[in-house]
Amino acid sequence: MEEVDHLAHERSKTQFDVAAMKIVWAGSKHEFEISDRVSRLVASDPVFRKDNRAVLSRKELFKNTLRKTAHAWKRINELRLTEEEAWELRFYIDEPAFTDLHWGMFIPSIKGLGTEEQLQKWLPLANTMRIIGCYAQTELGHGSNVQGLETTATFDPKTDEFILHSPTLTSSKWWPGGLGKVSTHAVVYARLITDGQDHGVNGFIVQLRSLDDHSPLPGITIGDVGMKFGNGAYNSMDNGVLQFDHVRIPRDQMLMRVSQVTREGKYLRSDVPRQLVYGTMVFVRQYIVFNASYALSRAVCIATRYSAVRRQFGSQDGGIETQVIDYKTQQNRLFPLLASAYAFRFVSEWLKWLYTDVTQRLQANDFSTLPEAHACTAGLKSLTTTATADGIEECRKLCGGHGYLCSSGLPELFAVYIPACTYEGDNIVLLLQLARFLMKTVSQLGSGKKPIGAISYMGQVEHLMQCRCSVQSVEDWLKPSIVLEAFQARAARMSVTCAENLSKFSSIEEGFMELSADLVEAAIAHCQLIVVSKFIEKLQQDIPGKGVKEQLEVLCNIYALSLLHKHQGDFLATGCITPEQASLVNAQLRSLYSQVRPNAIALVDAFNYTDHFLGSVLGRYDGNVYPKLYEEAWKDPLNDSVVPDGYHEYIRPILKQQLRMARL
Amino acid sequence: MEEVDHLAHERSKTQFDVAAMKIVWAGSKHEFEISDRVSRLVASDPVFRKDNRAVLSRKELFKNTLRKTAHAWKRINELRLTEEEAWELRFYIDEPAFTDLHWGMFIPSIKGLGTEEQLQKWLPLANTMRIIGCYAQTELGHGSNVQGLETTATFDPKTDEFILHSPTLTSSKWWPGGLGKVSTHAVVYARLITDGQDHGVNGFIVQLRSLDDHSPLPGITIGDVGMKFGNGAYNSMDNGVLQFDHVRIPRDQMLMRVSQVTREGKYLRSDVPRQLVYGTMVFVRQYIVFNASYALSRAVCIATRYSAVRRQFGSQDGGIETQVIDYKTQQNRLFPLLASAYAFRFVSEWLKWLYTDVTQRLQANDFSTLPEAHACTAGLKSLTTTATADGIEECRKLCGGHGYLCSSGLPELFAVYIPACTYEGDNIVLLLQLARFLMKTVSQLGSGKKPIGAISYMGQVEHLMQCRCSVQSVEDWLKPSIVLEAFQARAARMSVTCAENLSKFSSIEEGFMELSADLVEAAIAHCQLIVVSKFIEKLQQDIPGKGVKEQLEVLCNIYALSLLHKHQGDFLATGCITPEQASLVNAQLRSLYSQVRPNAIALVDAFNYTDHFLGSVLGRYDGNVYPKLYEEAWKDPLNDSVVPDGYHEYIRPILKQQLRMARL
Ligand SMILES: Cc1cc2nc3c(=O)[nH]c(=O)nc-3n(C[C@H](O)[C@H](O)[C@H](O)COP(=O)(O)OP(=O)(O)OC[C@H]3O[C@@H](n4cnc5c(N)ncnc54)[C@H](O)[C@@H]3O)c2cc1C
Ligand SMILES: Cc1cc2nc3c(=O)[nH]c(=O)nc-3n(C[C@H](O)[C@H](O)[C@H](O)COP(=O)(O)OP(=O)(O)OC[C@H]3O[C@@H](n4cnc5c(N)ncnc54)[C@H](O)[C@@H]3O)c2cc1C
Ligand SMILES: [Ca+2]
Repeated sequence: MEEVDHLAHERSKTQFDVAAMKIVWAGSKHEFEISDRVSRLVASDPVFRKDNRAVLSRKELFKNTLRKTAHAWKRINELRLTEEEAWELRFYIDEPAFTDLHWGMFIPSIKGLGTEEQLQKWLPLANTMRIIGCYAQTELGHGSNVQGLETTATFDPKTDEFILHSPTLTSSKWWPGGLGKVSTHAVVYARLITDGQDHGVNGFIVQLRSLDDHSPLPGITIGDVGMKFGNGAYNSMDNGVLQFDHVRIPRDQMLMRVSQVTREGKYLRSDVPRQLVYGTMVFVRQYIVFNASYALSRAVCIATRYSAVRRQFGSQDGGIETQVIDYKTQQNRLFPLLASAYAFRFVSEWLKWLYTDVTQRLQANDFSTLPEAHACTAGLKSLTTTATADGIEECRKLCGGHGYLCSSGLPELFAVYIPACTYEGDNIVLLLQLARFLMKTVSQLGSGKKPIGAISYMGQVEHLMQCRCSVQSVEDWLKPSIVLEAFQARAARMSVTCAENLSKFSSIEEGFMELSADLVEAAIAHCQLIVVSKFIEKLQQDIPGKGVKEQLEVLCNIYALSLLHKHQGDFLATGCITPEQASLVNAQLRSLYSQVRPNAIALVDAFNYTDHFLGSVLGRYDGNVYPKLYEEAWKDPLNDSVVPDGYHEYIRPILKQQLRMARL
Repeated sequence: MEEVDHLAHERSKTQFDVAAMKIVWAGSKHEFEISDRVSRLVASDPVFRKDNRAVLSRKELFKNTLRKTAHAWKRINELRLTEEEAWELRFYIDEPAFTDLHWGMFIPSIKGLGTEEQLQKWLPLANTMRIIGCYAQTELGHGSNVQGLETTATFDPKTDEFILHSPTLTSSKWWPGGLGKVSTHAVVYARLITDGQDHGVNGFIVQLRSLDDHSPLPGITIGDVGMKFGNGAYNSMDNGVLQFDHVRIPRDQMLMRVSQVTREGKYLRSDVPRQLVYGTMVFVRQYIVFNASYALSRAVCIATRYSAVRRQFGSQDGGIETQVIDYKTQQNRLFPLLASAYAFRFVSEWLKWLYTDVTQRLQANDFSTLPEAHACTAGLKSLTTTATADGIEECRKLCGGHGYLCSSGLPELFAVYIPACTYEGDNIVLLLQLARFLMKTVSQLGSGKKPIGAISYMGQVEHLMQCRCSVQSVEDWLKPSIVLEAFQARAARMSVTCAENLSKFSSIEEGFMELSADLVEAAIAHCQLIVVSKFIEKLQQDIPGKGVKEQLEVLCNIYALSLLHKHQGDFLATGCITPEQASLVNAQLRSLYSQVRPNAIALVDAFNYTDHFLGSVLGRYDGNVYPKLYEEAWKDPLNDSVVPDGYHEYIRPILKQQLRMARL
C-alpha cells in the first residue's frame, strides 16, 4: 500500500503554527505532552485495538472490554502512571467501562459524602481496586426526581444495621453503569427511615457481590438492563438492574458527612451545609462539558478531512470534480461546528477554573458563589451536550452515504455520546433549573443585591434593555464589544420578559409551568452568551504562535455570528438588532468561512488525534479513504462466503418457484 | 400477568371519534381495511416475530430476514394477495430487505426506461421473482453527481455486445441494496461508449449471479459493504460492492426507451423526452414522503404513550407524581411532532395525486407541469425526511433514559430511518435543485409566464411583497387565511431577496455558489408553505366523524404556528410579522397544546399500529411499561450467567491484586 498523504496539498496552505495551536487546544504544554504521549501509547498497544467492535456479539464485546480494562490497570501500575496520566489512558482506550463509574462516580461520591473515618476506610480499598464500585441512584420508575426514589434503608436499632429493601418493581435500581456484572460495591441512594420516620434520600455504601467468587450476596438480585443504542458503543458497559430483599449493612456504611444516624437510631444533621453536594455536581458537569468538546471535535475532524477528500460535481467534461468542502452549504454546516468545538473547549477550561474557585471558597466557608456556579454549570452541561449530539449527527450527514457505515466511526460516536443529554440531569430539566435561577436574579435586581459571576451582566439591565446595536457595515460585526452587547441584551431582555409575564399569573409556580417553554429559551440565551463571552475573554489573553490568535478570532466570530443567525428570531423580536443588521451577519459569515477554508485541515489536525482514537476510515490523517473503505468492507462476516448462508433454504426456492412445497 | 389498560383513563377523556380518525389517517376506508387486516396478519405470524433483533449477529440477522422474505412470498402467493396487499405485507414485516429494491427500484426502472419489448421480456421474470434485481447506480467515489460515474459499457460491434468494466477502485458500485448477497440481476448505470465516444450515463440490465448455484458470473466480484448504523436496523440489507472485469452482455440489455444503440453501433436518441425519468423520481420521492409520516408517527406514538405513563416530580409528600406529558416543555417538543406526522401524511396524499396527474399528462404528451412537480417533490422529500430523522431522535430524548434502550424501539427506528436523508438525493443537494427552480420562477415573473402548481402563489408576488399581517389578538392566529398569507409572504420575500442578491454577481453561477446557504433557507420556506397549505386544503374538505375535523384543525394550527415560532427570524427579518404578533403566536400555541392534551393518546391510537409494528416496550398500547422493561432486560445474553464470562481472567486478578503476575 502506497504511503501518500492525500491531504498534503491542504496542509501546505496552512497560515498558522499548528504545533502552537495544539498546545492551546490541549490547555498547556504539560497537558499536551501527556495526552500526546499517552494517546500514542494506547494506539500502539495491540490489546487496545478497536477493530470490528461493530460485529462483536454482546458477550464478546463485553469480555473484550474487561480484557482491555485489566490490561490498562496492569499498564498503569507497571508504568507507575500519575493519576492524571491514568485518567488519560482510560480516556484514550475509548470504550465505556465499569472503571468510568468506579473512578468518576463511586470514589468522588465517597469523597463528597463520607466522613473522615469513612474516607480512611474506603478510599484505600477503592484506589487500589481491591473493591470496585458504582453509583446506584436511578430506579426503574424514578430518574430526574431523586426525591421520589422508593428504595428504603430502615434502621434496625436491635442489630445496629440498616435494612435495604426494594418495596416495588419500580423501585429496582436501573441504569447504574458497572452494576450489572462487575461492581463489588455501590453507593446506593435510598430513603432513610428511623423509627418509622422518613428522612428522605441518603447515600449508603453497600457490598453487592462476594469478594471470593463474585456471586451476588444473599437477598440481592442483579442483572444487566440489556442492549442499548448502537453497535459497540455503550454496550461495553454493564448498566444494571438491582433489587434488595431485606439486605442488612452495618450502620457505619451510611455516608454520614451531611447527616448521621446514632447508635440509638437518632437522626442528626451535621453543621456541614447541604450545598456541599453541589460541589460534586459542578465537578462532574464541568467534566461533561470538557468531554463535549472532545466528542464534537472528533466528529468535526472526520467530516472536515473527508470533505476535503470527497469530490462531487463541478467538473467540466470529465475533469476533476470540486472538493465538497468548497461548497458554501457544506461550510455553513461544518465550520460553525468546528468553531463550537473550540468554543466548548475554552468554556470548559473556564469551568475547571470555576470549580477550583468554588472548592477553595467552600473550604473557607464561603458559599456565596455556589448557586450561580451551580446554575451556570447545569446550563452549560445542557447546552454543550445537546449541541454536540446534534453536531455529531450533522457531521455524519456531511459525509453523505459513507457516513452511514460503521467504518466511518460516526455512528458509534453518536450512539455512545447521546446519553450525555440525559444522564447527570436531563437537559430540559437542567435548563428549567437555570431558568429558576435567572428569574430569581431578575426579581432581586431592584433589591440592591448585585448579580455575580457569569450573570453579572444583569447588573446593567437598564442599559441592556434599551441599548441599540451600532452595526452599520459588515466589518462592524467583527467587534467583540458589539457582539457581546448584542448577546447580553438578548439574554437580559428574554429573562426580563419572562419575569414580567410570570408576574401576571396568580402563583409563580403556575406561571412557571405555563411559560416553561419560553423560560427554556431564555436559559439557552444566557448559556450562549456565556460561551461567547468566555471565547472572547480567552482571546484577550496572550496567545503565542504565528497566526494562532488570528485563526481563533475567526472561529470566535463564526461561533457568535452563526448563533446570531440561527437565533435571529430572538434578536429581532427583542429589538436587539434590526433586519438590516441581521442580513449583514450573513455576509460577514461568508467571508469568515473563506478565511477558515484554507486552514480547515490544520485546525482539525491541531486536535492531535491519533487514527486509533478517531477510529474512522473517513477521518484518516492521510486521507487515503477509498482503499481503506474497500478493505474494511471485506471484513464483514457476511463476506465469509460468496454464497450466503440461507441461500438454499430461502433464496433458491423463490427463484425456482418452489415455495408452495417448501417448508420454511 | 394482569391484563390492565394503564391508559384507559387517558382514553376515556377523548373528545373525538377515533374510528373515524383512523380512516382519515389511512386515506380511505378501503386503505384502512387493508392495512388493518394485513398488519394483524403479520403480527400474528410467528415467523415475523421481531424479538431480539438487537442481539443477533450480522449473519443470523441476515439469514433471519431471508427467512421472513421467503415466508412472505409464500404467504403472498398462498393468500393470492393483490399487489397493494403484498406491498403492505412487506411493509409491516418492517425489516429492510432485498425485496424493497426488487419491487421498489429494479422493476420501476425497467418500467420507466425499458422499451415495450424489454418490458415483455423482463417484467414477467421479475414479477414472479424468477429473477431478483437491484438498482446499481452509486459508486464508491460518486454519488450525488450521477454524471460523474466511471463504470463503462463499451459497445463491441464484433459480437453485438456491451463490455461492462470498472476501470478504477472508485468506480466500484457501492451501496446498492440487495446487491451484496442476493440479487441475480441489476439495473447498472454506466457510461455508454460507442466507437470511442462517450455518450454519458445509461441503464443496463446485467445478470450478476448464476441462476443455478448463485455464484457470481465470470468477471464479477461482489460483496457486502459491511456494518451500518445501529442494532438490527439496516443491517438486514445486503448493500453491496460490485466490480466488473470486462463483463459482456447482449446489446438488447441496454435500456433503450430514451436512447438506442443500433446493431452497427450507432447511438440514437428516441423522440421520447428525457424528462420522462423525472416521472419515476416523482414516484419514488412521494413514496419517501409517505414513509416519513409513518416513521415519525411511530416515534410520536411511542413517546406520547410513554409520556402519559411516566411520572416525575410534582408530588407533595410522596403522593403520585405528575405525568410528564403535562409539562409544557414536553408538550412543546412533542405536540408539534404529532402535528407534523399528520401534516406529512396529508401532503403525501396530495403528492400521490400529483404523481397520478403528472403521469396522465405525460401520456397525453403534456410536460408542462413536470418541472414544478419535480422540484416540489425534491424539496418535500428533503423537508420531511430531515424533520422525521430529527423528530425520531427528539422522541427518544422525550423518553429520558429508557429511550436509550433497544427495547424502547426508538434507537432502531432512528438508525433505520436516517439514510432517507441521503439516499434518493442528498437533502441539501435536493434543496439546491429546488432553489434553482425558485430563482428561475422569480426571474420569469416579469415575462408574463404564470407560475403553476404549488408555486402559483408567486403570481401574486407584488401583493406578497408588501402585505401586512393583520393579527391583533391571540385568536387571529387561528384564521387559515392569515396564516397562509404569512407563510406565502415569507417564502416569496426570501426568494425575491435571493434573486436580487444573485443579480449583483458577475455570473449567476458564482452568485449561486456564494449565496447557497440563503438559497437553501428560501427553499425550506417554500416547502413549509406547501405543507401548511395542503393541510389547510385538507380541512376544507368534508371530514366525517364527531370531533375529527376539530382535532385536525388544532393540529394544523400547531403545525403552522410552531414553525412560525421556530423560524420567527425569517418572518421578522422579512417584515411579514411584527414582534408583537410573534409573541401572540406563543400564547396561542400554549392554548392549542391544552386542547390536544386530553386527546393525545387517542390521536396516536388513530395510527392503528399493532404492538408488533411499534416494536416498543415504552409504546405498548396498554401502557404496561415497567414489568415489560424488566422482562426484556433479562433476555440479554449477558444475563445468561450470574458471574460474567471473563471474571476469572480479568476481574478477579484486579481485585486480588494479582495483575503483575497475570498474563492477559
Ligand atoms: C447510558 C446511561 C447511563 C446511566 N448511568 C447511571 C448511573 O451510573 N447511575 C445512576 O444512578 N443513573 C444512571 N443513569 C440514569 C440517568 O441518570 C437518568 O436516566 C436521568 O437522570 C434522566 O432521568 P429519567 O430517565 O428518569 O428521565 P425522565 O425524568 O423520566 O424524563 C422523561 C421526560 O420527562 C421530562 N421531564 C422530567 N421531569 C420534568 C420536569 N420537572 N419538567 C419538565 N419536563 C420534565 C424530561 O425532560 C424528559 O423529556 C444512566 C442513564 C443512561 C441513559
Ligand atoms: C442505506 C443506503 C442505501 C442506498 N441504496 C442505494 C441503492 O440501492 N442503489 C444506489 O445506486 N445507491 C444507493 N445508495 C447511495 C445513495 O444514493 C448515495 O449515498 C446518495 O446519493 C448520496 O450521495 P453520496 O453518498 O455520494 O454523498 P455526497 O454527494 O458525496 O455528499 C457528501 C456531502 O457533500 C455535499 N454535496 C454534494 N454535492 C453538493 C453540491 N453540489 N452542493 C453542495 N453540497 C454538495 C452533500 O450535501 C453532503 O454533505 C444508498 C445509500 C445508503 C446510505
Ligand atoms: Ca451483534
